[in-house]
Amino acid sequence: MINITLPDGSIKEMESGTTPMDVAMSISQGLARNVISASFNGTKVETKTPLTEDGSLVLFTFSNPEGKEAFWHSTSHIMAQAIEELYPGVSLTIGPAIDNGFYYDIDFKEHAISENDIPKIEARMLEIARGKHEFKMRSVSKADALKFYKDQNNPYKVELIENLTDGEITFCDHDTFTDLCRGGHVPNTGIIKAVKIMSIAGAYWRGDENNPQLTRMYGTSFPKQKDLKEYLELLEEAKKRDHRKLGKELQLFTFSQRVGQGLPLWLPKGAALRERLEDFLKKAQKKAGYEMVVSPHIGSKELYVTSGHYEKYGADSFQPIKTPNEDEEFLLKPMNCPHHCEIYKSAQWSYRDLPKRFAEFGTVYRYEQSGELHGLTRVRGFTQDDAHIFCMPEQLDAEFKAVIDLVLYVFGSLGFENFTAQVSIRDPKKPEKYIGDTANWEIAENAIISAAKDKGLNYVIEEGEAAFYGPKLDFMVKDALGRSWQLGTIQVDYNLPERFDLWYKGADNESHRPVMIHRAPFGSMERFIAILLEHTGGNFPLWLMPEQCTILSLSEKYENYAKEVANSLEINEIRTTVDNRAETMGKKIREAEMNKLPYMLIVGEQEEKDGTISVRKHGGEDLGAMTVTSFTELVKKEISETIKTFEV
Amino acid sequence: MINITLPDGSIKEMESGTTPMDVAMSISQGLARNVISASFNGTKVETKTPLTEDGSLVLFTFSNPEGKEAFWHSTSHIMAQAIEELYPGVSLTIGPAIDNGFYYDIDFKEHAISENDIPKIEARMLEIARGKHEFKMRSVSKADALKFYKDQNNPYKVELIENLTDGEITFCDHDTFTDLCRGGHVPNTGIIKAVKIMSIAGAYWRGDENNPQLTRMYGTSFPKQKDLKEYLELLEEAKKRDHRKLGKELQLFTFSQRVGQGLPLWLPKGAALRERLEDFLKKAQKKAGYEMVVSPHIGSKELYVTSGHYEKYGADSFQPIKTPNEDEEFLLKPMNCPHHCEIYKSAQWSYRDLPKRFAEFGTVYRYEQSGELHGLTRVRGFTQDDAHIFCMPEQLDAEFKAVIDLVLYVFGSLGFENFTAQVSIRDPKKPEKYIGDTANWEIAENAIISAAKDKGLNYVIEEGEAAFYGPKLDFMVKDALGRSWQLGTIQVDYNLPERFDLWYKGADNESHRPVMIHRAPFGSMERFIAILLEHTGGNFPLWLMPEQCTILSLSEKYENYAKEVANSLEINEIRTTVDNRAETMGKKIREAEMNKLPYMLIVGEQEEKDGTISVRKHGGEDLGAMTVTSFTELVKKEISETIKTFEV
Repeated sequence: MINITLPDGSIKEMESGTTPMDVAMSISQGLARNVISASFNGTKVETKTPLTEDGSLVLFTFSNPEGKEAFWHSTSHIMAQAIEELYPGVSLTIGPAIDNGFYYDIDFKEHAISENDIPKIEARMLEIARGKHEFKMRSVSKADALKFYKDQNNPYKVELIENLTDGEITFCDHDTFTDLCRGGHVPNTGIIKAVKIMSIAGAYWRGDENNPQLTRMYGTSFPKQKDLKEYLELLEEAKKRDHRKLGKELQLFTFSQRVGQGLPLWLPKGAALRERLEDFLKKAQKKAGYEMVVSPHIGSKELYVTSGHYEKYGADSFQPIKTPNEDEEFLLKPMNCPHHCEIYKSAQWSYRDLPKRFAEFGTVYRYEQSGELHGLTRVRGFTQDDAHIFCMPEQLDAEFKAVIDLVLYVFGSLGFENFTAQVSIRDPKKPEKYIGDTANWEIAENAIISAAKDKGLNYVIEEGEAAFYGPKLDFMVKDALGRSWQLGTIQVDYNLPERFDLWYKGADNESHRPVMIHRAPFGSMERFIAILLEHTGGNFPLWLMPEQCTILSLSEKYENYAKEVANSLEINEIRTTVDNRAETMGKKIREAEMNKLPYMLIVGEQEEKDGTISVRKHGGEDLGAMTVTSFTELVKKEISETIKTFEV
Repeated sequence: MINITLPDGSIKEMESGTTPMDVAMSISQGLARNVISASFNGTKVETKTPLTEDGSLVLFTFSNPEGKEAFWHSTSHIMAQAIEELYPGVSLTIGPAIDNGFYYDIDFKEHAISENDIPKIEARMLEIARGKHEFKMRSVSKADALKFYKDQNNPYKVELIENLTDGEITFCDHDTFTDLCRGGHVPNTGIIKAVKIMSIAGAYWRGDENNPQLTRMYGTSFPKQKDLKEYLELLEEAKKRDHRKLGKELQLFTFSQRVGQGLPLWLPKGAALRERLEDFLKKAQKKAGYEMVVSPHIGSKELYVTSGHYEKYGADSFQPIKTPNEDEEFLLKPMNCPHHCEIYKSAQWSYRDLPKRFAEFGTVYRYEQSGELHGLTRVRGFTQDDAHIFCMPEQLDAEFKAVIDLVLYVFGSLGFENFTAQVSIRDPKKPEKYIGDTANWEIAENAIISAAKDKGLNYVIEEGEAAFYGPKLDFMVKDALGRSWQLGTIQVDYNLPERFDLWYKGADNESHRPVMIHRAPFGSMERFIAILLEHTGGNFPLWLMPEQCTILSLSEKYENYAKEVANSLEINEIRTTVDNRAETMGKKIREAEMNKLPYMLIVGEQEEKDGTISVRKHGGEDLGAMTVTSFTELVKKEISETIKTFEV
């Protein structure tokens, strides 16, 4: 008999040779139906692998990342089988699971493959799946493995096998198909109910352009047809909401090859949006006792040697800036904290002065490979809504709570309602990994956890995920399409105060080290705006819209009335434009819709006579005719319902 | 007879051998009394130099820079004579005129010289001056010149003479004193009525630290005792108003060696001041039809190769930023215009869209030698209140006028009442120096001149001072101490639209080049704030003050009343602090005075009872007790009298 420990800590006594699937069945039929793969003592195993010793078992379903990986990897075997059958003589290479699916790189040889081939491959895949074939792993000798693929005339697999120097070589069989494989499969093909080949692309063998070109077949699969349908709809919606597309359509930002990749240029509407977000946060921060500072975008190399950033990131970053005649070197700043430490250091502080909260919308530059760049989410220059709080250890608790309040205020005002928090603390088994006094770490970790609890956050604690210099709390936000984004971080730091030799005079008249908190509710303006664009599809909360309404005149006769209405609205601080062009009303409305204008105010003869406007909401809802005063109230009400005043 | 042409174009027929002094006498006795030096056909001459050919003569008095130079250079001879008499055996080296005076570098040998020696040197200098000794130039042979100084055992002058390879060698005699000298003196010593030795410093012979150390004696002199007194008072006041001193006292900004020289760190009060200035300009710019944009602080090298900046400034600037793996190079941006050109280029414009006015508070970085850095006026990173107007040539006139309106609004709101304008146009004799179409240049120059005239500016036109790419208008502002600063520039540019291949579609449906206007009313935030600090001595206009008033409670009993008053003022948007410390009222007032707090509101028993505050102005004026409402009105009135609403 062996003891199997489950994730909830319970122990099952089972016979030696029992499989993960047996354990699942001993728990429930439902689990057994859904179990896809497993890990035993931290190692990936098949659901049919016999367990012969005591150990910890985790069972995975499609809802776990590990389950998805096995599911998609298994589907890649099925796709490979279907293709081998339909296109005899092709050579398979590698076929891993990736985010949201899998691919297989294949040398199609004399076969010309195109999008038109997809339906018949998919059909054959589903046929194979329905056969409920088991995936069975077996060991083979290197010689047999080589022979198998040499017989198939497949130089790629031969090369792979020749390069395998350690461990056993395993093949996986299902139905009539065999593949070189390390394992991690669903119990049988029957669990795969929906498949989709997403695209066909070119790829070089081993990513090297001197090698033969292969065909990469991207696919995905699901346990239910409905899941696939939802996924495809989500993709469609995500494409529509792609912030790069919306950013262009709404004229928010642009890129220029000549300025440089990954360096956004903010167009007037985007710059206004950024400024509005910044002003919103500034106002709340002022109430919360922050003080704005301004620091340069470069610092001497010495600054980053002091902070430790140079040693850690120097080689992978933008390289030092030399000067013509002097022996000086500067670096583009990758973070604002060293500058803020120097600002703290420019004066002497007593315990009565703390906390000092220095905030800056600080633009930082970090080198990313050009292949890694993506719209506004991966850039080479971005503006952090940064702040550093310098406080006494005993103030951490209150400061952490106050920062959480601020972050929740930001999320609430911007329509992010669905979020969780992750608290990252030390690995208790490796105390040597961390800088700073154990007692202080305990204070900090307790402060974070108690703050998270106190503020009613939905949080998980991750041991060993803390940075070496302090524990932290990260917010994970779900957007309208259900995708998760990390937004907002609060981080404790014992390292920089040490490195910069920061201190304050305590009530005991002695010098003490302050603790630092790094925090950024938005994270970066660029990334936040990208996420907000994808979350809202460009329909920002009304208070944030660059243009809140537009007045569409039915003809030139109503131009003056349109301007009059616009003036009254502007006086009431409603951002208004006037479209007095000699275009049809249909065209004017279509353009306003495309620009995501929240309100279209139509004025013509009747409206001018009655002193009203006809109000149409974005999306088409007709609110009918109303006075400018009623409309102003309606707008103010909508705004006040989203963005409350921040109360400390 | 020869013909002497005077600066007003008049021609005097004089006998050959006549001197500039003779010409002065022929004009007026007063001029003859005041004439100090002269230039003939562009060459410096003495007032006694005989003129033997036709030519143009300019006579200089102390009010001309050339006159001052001769005056101060002559005084350095007198100081040298006095020192040679008082400290026998010293070796003189060089003694030039500089800004505001002169110096002489002297090897005092065995004599120990200190501040205590100054009075007796000054006394002897005045004695010599009163002797009305003429300065007389004479040619000497190299051999005689060397002998003269070898006999004096003066290796420095010997070295100077040995290095003279061309031209004649001249000595200047006055009284008993002789010096190696190229000329440029006052007629006789009697004109020098006031002298002052300002300081004694060390200096290496020829500025090389491997050479012997000399003593540098700095001095100044004036034609009237009263002028010296005023100058010394001005220096005293300038020292008090030094922006580096005030910036520290008022906690506006700081520097850190570790961040780097010439890279200011803005402290909370300074950052708030900057932001207030920026908001003020933003508001006016919005009314004037500008659109804010945001661009990165670096650009690819290619961008600056395109703009021409790389070729022109590359070698003397911060050097290119290399990246770890890729063949890319970036530069810190020295100006915002190339980025704004790329923003213009990101869309297609028709004549109906123009002018486009892109504005940005853009931080730029320019390398300055560390020895050139000075507080906020010479820095390595600064924020320009930059904007670029892209317009049609026929719009230049209106745009220029609008920019002048904006600049005048800025100056008016900030208390700069005394300014002139300089219009820089082409050198009509060298058309090949300039890029762009002659017809367009004429349009632009006429637009600038007509705008300057139209707006009633006090302007001068300087031929040949235009940049190669277009004409410009600069504002020169006089501060409260009478010093001139260049602030605010408006510049036409035909070059960048060409280099970036910018265009718009005209009414004729053809492509045309727009013209660009660069403009910055403040110039740079750093420099402007420095000048504003020195102009106001830190007593900014009330609307701009970081703290507008402070409430000083007489004792802790009035704490709550003080807070209540503060709340009412804050609601009325008057920036208020409360000083409830248990310090004496004397100390609280002294500190508030030092912090330049415009209004101190004292609250005690009587005030709480009456619901009033006792108002004391910065500087000591007692405005007596008044209600919070009256005080609010007083403040609002003062503000509205300085800063008007900008009207387009």
